[in-house]
Amino acid sequence: MTEVTDRVKWNAEGLVPVVVTQHGSGEVLMLAWMDEEALSRSLDTGRATYWSRSRQEYWIKGETSGHKQWVRELRVDCDGDTLLLTVEQEGAACHTGDRTCFDAGLLAEFGPRAEA
Amino acid sequence: MTEVTDRVKWNAEGLVPVVVTQHGSGEVLMLAWMDEEALSRSLDTGRATYWSRSRQEYWIKGETSGHKQWVRELRVDCDGDTLLLTVEQEGAACHTGDRTCFDAGLLAEFGPRAEA
Repeated sequence: MTEVTDRVKWNAEGLVPVVVTQHGSGEVLMLAWMDEEALSRSLDTGRATYWSRSRQEYWIKGETSGHKQWVRELRVDCDGDTLLLTVEQEGAACHTGDRTCFDAGLLAEFGPRAEA
Repeated sequence: MTEVTDRVKWNAEGLVPVVVTQHGSGEVLMLAWMDEEALSRSLDTGRATYWSRSRQEYWIKGETSGHKQWVRELRVDCDGDTLLLTVEQEGAACHTGDRTCFDAGLLAEFGPRAEA
């Protein structure tokens, strides 16, 4: 355990959700999960590395697609149970080829609030 | 179940993580959790409503603090298991008084990637 990983409250499965944003624009690219080892590897290598819950294995982003993520900044939230990772994204962040994992997923839109 | 809530893959606890961003700037304000009822209430009322895992109750953002969130857009990610909620945030999003829940939580910073 390092000074950084010690700041994180891991859930019952030893994981923490990671909001991944693009350096500069702040665009939200995706949400992924890390365990302590994935976080340590990300910081040691500078390459965003996650824990795949579906495949139950470590997943170095871009290892097969070439769409690497280079770590620029790491933040933890006020409760210690969410990370905000800023990266330089090469190419598409989404496995569908979309820039972000949210591009195709518009569900609802609303106008400005009515109440002052 | 509505057309919208039907698009969401709820976890074993019936929850989904929600990345909350500021309308216009896209700034990441916080991460919270919703169950199907919280999502329905958010869409029906236009006021962001979450499920508090620590208090085990619904939580209308800003109900006590006055720091309301007005829903502007809802997106789901490619896997269906994360929501991206765009809101108009009144005042501070964080209970500490900070604008976002990540303001005080800088853990690490890196320069531009070395590899081309």
